[in-house]
Amino acid sequence: MTNRPNLSHGRGYLAIPGPSVMPDAVLQAMHRAAPNIYEGELVDMMPSVMADLKRVARTKHYAAIYIGNGHAAWEAALSNVISAGDHVLVPATGRFGHGWGEMAAALGAQTQVIDFGKSAPMDMDVIAQALAEDKDHRIKAVLAVHVDTSSSVLNNIKGIREALDALDHPALLMADCIASLGCDRFEMDDWGVDVMVTGCQKGLMVPPGCSFVFFNDRAQAVREAMPRVSSYWDWTPRSTATEFWQYWCGTAPTHHIYGLRVALDMIHDEGIEQVWARHGVLARAIWAACDAWSAGGDLRLNITDPALRSTAVTALRLGGADGTRLRNWVEQELGLTLGIGLGMAEPTDPARDAYFRLGHMGHVNGQMIMGLLGGMQAGMSALGIAHGRGALDAAAEVIGGA
Amino acid sequence: MTNRPNLSHGRGYLAIPGPSVMPDAVLQAMHRAAPNIYEGELVDMMPSVMADLKRVARTKHYAAIYIGNGHAAWEAALSNVISAGDHVLVPATGRFGHGWGEMAAALGAQTQVIDFGKSAPMDMDVIAQALAEDKDHRIKAVLAVHVDTSSSVLNNIKGIREALDALDHPALLMADCIASLGCDRFEMDDWGVDVMVTGCQKGLMVPPGCSFVFFNDRAQAVREAMPRVSSYWDWTPRSTATEFWQYWCGTAPTHHIYGLRVALDMIHDEGIEQVWARHGVLARAIWAACDAWSAGGDLRLNITDPALRSTAVTALRLGGADGTRLRNWVEQELGLTLGIGLGMAEPTDPARDAYFRLGHMGHVNGQMIMGLLGGMQAGMSALGIAHGRGALDAAAEVIGGA
Amino acid sequence: MTNRPNLSHGRGYLAIPGPSVMPDAVLQAMHRAAPNIYEGELVDMMPSVMADLKRVARTKHYAAIYIGNGHAAWEAALSNVISAGDHVLVPATGRFGHGWGEMAAALGAQTQVIDFGKSAPMDMDVIAQALAEDKDHRIKAVLAVHVDTSSSVLNNIKGIREALDALDHPALLMADCIASLGCDRFEMDDWGVDVMVTGCQKGLMVPPGCSFVFFNDRAQAVREAMPRVSSYWDWTPRSTATEFWQYWCGTAPTHHIYGLRVALDMIHDEGIEQVWARHGVLARAIWAACDAWSAGGDLRLNITDPALRSTAVTALRLGGADGTRLRNWVEQELGLTLGIGLGMAEPTDPARDAYFRLGHMGHVNGQMIMGLLGGMQAGMSALGIAHGRGALDAAAEVIGGA
Amino acid sequence: MTNRPNLSHGRGYLAIPGPSVMPDAVLQAMHRAAPNIYEGELVDMMPSVMADLKRVARTKHYAAIYIGNGHAAWEAALSNVISAGDHVLVPATGRFGHGWGEMAAALGAQTQVIDFGKSAPMDMDVIAQALAEDKDHRIKAVLAVHVDTSSSVLNNIKGIREALDALDHPALLMADCIASLGCDRFEMDDWGVDVMVTGCQKGLMVPPGCSFVFFNDRAQAVREAMPRVSSYWDWTPRSTATEFWQYWCGTAPTHHIYGLRVALDMIHDEGIEQVWARHGVLARAIWAACDAWSAGGDLRLNITDPALRSTAVTALRLGGADGTRLRNWVEQELGLTLGIGLGMAEPTDPARDAYFRLGHMGHVNGQMIMGLLGGMQAGMSALGIAHGRGALDAAAEVIGGA
Repeated sequence: MTNRPNLSHGRGYLAIPGPSVMPDAVLQAMHRAAPNIYEGELVDMMPSVMADLKRVARTKHYAAIYIGNGHAAWEAALSNVISAGDHVLVPATGRFGHGWGEMAAALGAQTQVIDFGKSAPMDMDVIAQALAEDKDHRIKAVLAVHVDTSSSVLNNIKGIREALDALDHPALLMADCIASLGCDRFEMDDWGVDVMVTGCQKGLMVPPGCSFVFFNDRAQAVREAMPRVSSYWDWTPRSTATEFWQYWCGTAPTHHIYGLRVALDMIHDEGIEQVWARHGVLARAIWAACDAWSAGGDLRLNITDPALRSTAVTALRLGGADGTRLRNWVEQELGLTLGIGLGMAEPTDPARDAYFRLGHMGHVNGQMIMGLLGGMQAGMSALGIAHGRGALDAAAEVIGGA
Repeated sequence: MTNRPNLSHGRGYLAIPGPSVMPDAVLQAMHRAAPNIYEGELVDMMPSVMADLKRVARTKHYAAIYIGNGHAAWEAALSNVISAGDHVLVPATGRFGHGWGEMAAALGAQTQVIDFGKSAPMDMDVIAQALAEDKDHRIKAVLAVHVDTSSSVLNNIKGIREALDALDHPALLMADCIASLGCDRFEMDDWGVDVMVTGCQKGLMVPPGCSFVFFNDRAQAVREAMPRVSSYWDWTPRSTATEFWQYWCGTAPTHHIYGLRVALDMIHDEGIEQVWARHGVLARAIWAACDAWSAGGDLRLNITDPALRSTAVTALRLGGADGTRLRNWVEQELGLTLGIGLGMAEPTDPARDAYFRLGHMGHVNGQMIMGLLGGMQAGMSALGIAHGRGALDAAAEVIGGA
Repeated sequence: MTNRPNLSHGRGYLAIPGPSVMPDAVLQAMHRAAPNIYEGELVDMMPSVMADLKRVARTKHYAAIYIGNGHAAWEAALSNVISAGDHVLVPATGRFGHGWGEMAAALGAQTQVIDFGKSAPMDMDVIAQALAEDKDHRIKAVLAVHVDTSSSVLNNIKGIREALDALDHPALLMADCIASLGCDRFEMDDWGVDVMVTGCQKGLMVPPGCSFVFFNDRAQAVREAMPRVSSYWDWTPRSTATEFWQYWCGTAPTHHIYGLRVALDMIHDEGIEQVWARHGVLARAIWAACDAWSAGGDLRLNITDPALRSTAVTALRLGGADGTRLRNWVEQELGLTLGIGLGMAEPTDPARDAYFRLGHMGHVNGQMIMGLLGGMQAGMSALGIAHGRGALDAAAEVIGGA
Repeated sequence: MTNRPNLSHGRGYLAIPGPSVMPDAVLQAMHRAAPNIYEGELVDMMPSVMADLKRVARTKHYAAIYIGNGHAAWEAALSNVISAGDHVLVPATGRFGHGWGEMAAALGAQTQVIDFGKSAPMDMDVIAQALAEDKDHRIKAVLAVHVDTSSSVLNNIKGIREALDALDHPALLMADCIASLGCDRFEMDDWGVDVMVTGCQKGLMVPPGCSFVFFNDRAQAVREAMPRVSSYWDWTPRSTATEFWQYWCGTAPTHHIYGLRVALDMIHDEGIEQVWARHGVLARAIWAACDAWSAGGDLRLNITDPALRSTAVTALRLGGADGTRLRNWVEQELGLTLGIGLGMAEPTDPARDAYFRLGHMGHVNGQMIMGLLGGMQAGMSALGIAHGRGALDAAAEVIGGA
């Protein structure tokens, strides 16, 4: 193999679970001179941006945009409804539930974490039990991650609402849809979610830099009862702005707005239900390939039950250090970048190099996924990693709709 | 004039005090596929970005970057050193000093505001007096805006340090250089500034979306004594990151980093002292033109003494509603956008339409400034706004170095 | 002046007579993935591109596009109607008339050149005399440059038609509008022009790479009588294409077509009459400044009579080597690039450095022209080049419409 | 299948045999303001562009660039060495050999065409026979297409030189490398090629708009003996330019030069031998898949012998109208565009819809080819087109180097 030519010289493909592949049209829209921020086109387009964001989130209520990443949205959401001393319940199913809980703790909240491990979804009975035990309703909010980007589990957000309602528990249901929005079906209003946070760099297909908090009247009532909310995080002026700068508490992220405008148009032109369905087929193609590979090797999907898998990201593992070996090979030799495993093993654990992840969120189509899977198989072949045959045939059949 | 052709069809020029004109090279660098955020080029370039940022701020100490605007930097800086109940002194010289103070108040601080009006700099004696009266050193920080973007006044930041030192007052000196950094001379370490905040969209020539907090060991000592700092605003991991995500408390603003890398290169290739000198000559050309116009009309610069004017932004006024008339005309007829007046009159005050501002920060050269001034004079001529002659000759002489 | 800062760090302005300043929207449209050339969007847009090109040329007849520059269009046009041995009349008013004639000669034509010098337009009487002397109508075509880019003279194309008609001379009237189209008024059909050539990189605002030949039925009749026309230059399939590739005799210049589509939209959205009028006002502003400068120095416009000047380009001179000194200074110190003089002096003649040219064609507006003139005056001031005062005031008044 | 979601929403992949996929870096370099064409960066880079072009062509002799497409290069090359009445020998192996011959005929040449059909290479014996019969050496040039883009055959250019030399026949050997340069090995000097033509939009990875003619001293001697060469096509000044405009016979294609500069850097950074080797592996992966598909269906490669196939393009067919059905489906459903068949059947022949082609030239890597093949198989699966199994496994093994 020493003299084989390098096959990476071509268009790179970044298949990590965010940032996702950016559409050319989004990058184009962001390549422009600075606009006026006091009047004109940019100012005029904001109402439609807000409305179209809410359509993606499936809510008729409120939206606030923050210049920031997902962590900013976490803190923004918490800052509007959680004070020092408040109690929050954190059902964790991977790395990110813990992260949101830690951020709440750093704000002074009392956090009750239920750890469901790294390869399983939330157990509704366990959550119901925890809520039932909270007889004096000290739990002010449940922080629930819809899709954990590290484990790729898909959680039953609607189930938490049902558990709360069954107990008449007044806690806010706060959902993290950072990895899932615009990929996995999410119905904010129908599912009874009070607060939802997400970012722009995954299903929304815009370079990292904006994040979003959606909330309803119940959440706003809690906000209004807060002793103090910082003027930067306060979602009230941002969601009810009459002056352009109020949307942003200061200077707007001008170029991101143009990018976001295009991305929202693309999503709604396709139709959000179609977007979800597309992610569904593509994910099933990936799973079909993985099943075939698994039949003849050590490859394992982190989430066993397909009904519990996100269609935006897939966490998986090979044996030994083969996850990292495969990632390195396909990046260096084929121009294909896979995501590292996250939170599955301690940094010093050699098993860490078994894990990796595939991002398949946002601007992704059938030929890209076949390139992803085909590249992976070429890598396993090159590295002598055992794998079952027929994986690509299986994936092609799913994509072909057979 | 009804049949005159419209003369705006050409390259637009946005001469507002931020966002400033973006260099093509910056926009180019941001027009790219999403990069890997776990390893590779982007990760590797961060140490140099941090180092070069500090060179612009003229500090050898610490820097933290936030995805956000100037208000985010305000809140970030405050959140690291000011707790509810702490006292801050706010010498205000336009709109933005008040704004920063209000943000401190919303965080629970006790704010003591000294209002120096809208057309004057800070009076060092008054500040010294306020500090002297604070015998038990309850004032924990002085929030001082270097250049107020609304009034275009240039404040004597070093003078505040001298006043503090003369009184052995331990308050932190916190400077807002949002409008001035990379335009007006600023020497963080030499001037004894403990905390400095700025944004990327003015002298740093990058689309809005990143802001920066610089701080020294004195500030860090105060930080360490804080009862609680939110994990999002905490500047400690951001300034001492060993993992890439720690710089950002989560996902990095990938495309902004590429833009910032180019902008910093441009600044240091030119030389920061040369950048300041360039802004100085261009500002003096503007002032020379304004002096000539003033000699034959109602145009007035907001800051009378040239030594007290910023070289990044110029606030000025015409009579009646002529400021707004002129702005509208040059934008619609010539493709030249001037900044609105800010904070000079109440929204309902008709005098509001007298005020306007010129941005001349960042990526601006001699021919641009002549186009700005020539466009303004064409507008005054078209609208019958009285103005002295020879203004453009005067400006050309300054730019010519005569 | 040794320590003055360099004032070029900002947006550059290329004020040469082609290529002209490209609109951002054109460059954006060209920044895209390769399109399908067999079907789809690009193929579908060609009929509208052809129609809109003809609207700019003010003809209802035929257009052919060539991948090439102005010289390509010269040769293409000649190749369709001129065979070896044919006679052509070439009234030359600068460099480019000679150039077109030389190209005809290289194809074997007998060329009769009338040289009107470098600072004067065609003299209609002299042309009429030459035609009258051609009693047996051996002259097959008159090659007439509408605007000579080197001398900036504007020739009376319609006058040649009148001279031909008065004599019942059957020669084709072939016009070169490379420098003028989309700037100076040109009416192909109304003026009786049989063949017109132009390029995309001046008034049409697209990067160099496409050129155009327009022709009418009279020209087509001559074409059909030609003994042989190369299949590459043959305008017949290009102007009557039913397959996409026929427009181009092979592979299409895909990205240029996208750029051209945007540029044509911009022109027609503004209105071609308005485009001409805009160029007229801007040129008069330049001339007003030049007149004022001339009053106190050695600056001279090459064409004395304003009615004979192009509104797209201005040739002028200073004394000694001051043209080149000024060009160098404004480029290096202000970011403003002026055009070199062309064809006005032999390469070894020191007077060569007196001449220079200003391009003011295409995507150019009021504030740009004030920047151009202001920059020039700053340069004259810096270099001690004598010049009358008030030039910029005069230009601003023209632009202001006073 | 009526309710299956559309899977094309993602990054499109244009897999036609030119224009090829453009590298982002090339498009970036072309997205820039118009440069000065009289001095500076662009002018200074031309010698290196010419040198690096010759390195790709593997010649130490001469190069001339034309703004144009492949047909322009055909005509340019012919115009320098072929006059009306001259004889040329045209061994044709698909559509393009005939095309070049037709262009020569339109210039007045006497063309002797040897048609080797649509699925076979040149037969060296037949060519040698034709040359041997030309005892008085009337054949002035042999026009030989290296890779015919329609049939995807790879011809033995070196063999023609051997045949000429064996007969001491003085005819020029002229090669068309439009489809092959930068993909299939080509050695101009070593193989004794006198004139070579190519374009920028395939292996050279630049948007269509430039083409190239390379020639040696033997060709130049023929050029010098020509009775007349048009000044536009004359390769002499273009290949020996001392002034920038001489390279282009007028205005330069400014933006293409920047793009070409980047593309040449990419090629030479990878190494031309490595570029060829990469194309070789990727083509073998495609052929391996096709072999497997063929084993269970009607798919057939146009060229049977792998040694005679180009590694830049693959012509193939399915049964009935399945070629067109497949092309339409993968474009509409997966975002993958395949090339139409060319020249394989008359427009009215229903068999036309069996043929199609795959472009795999230029900026193409391992994951892209797996996406291409995977997409095709998904399409066959969706459309019920019979095909053997294991094709993608076979391709992955080739790419994996097993």
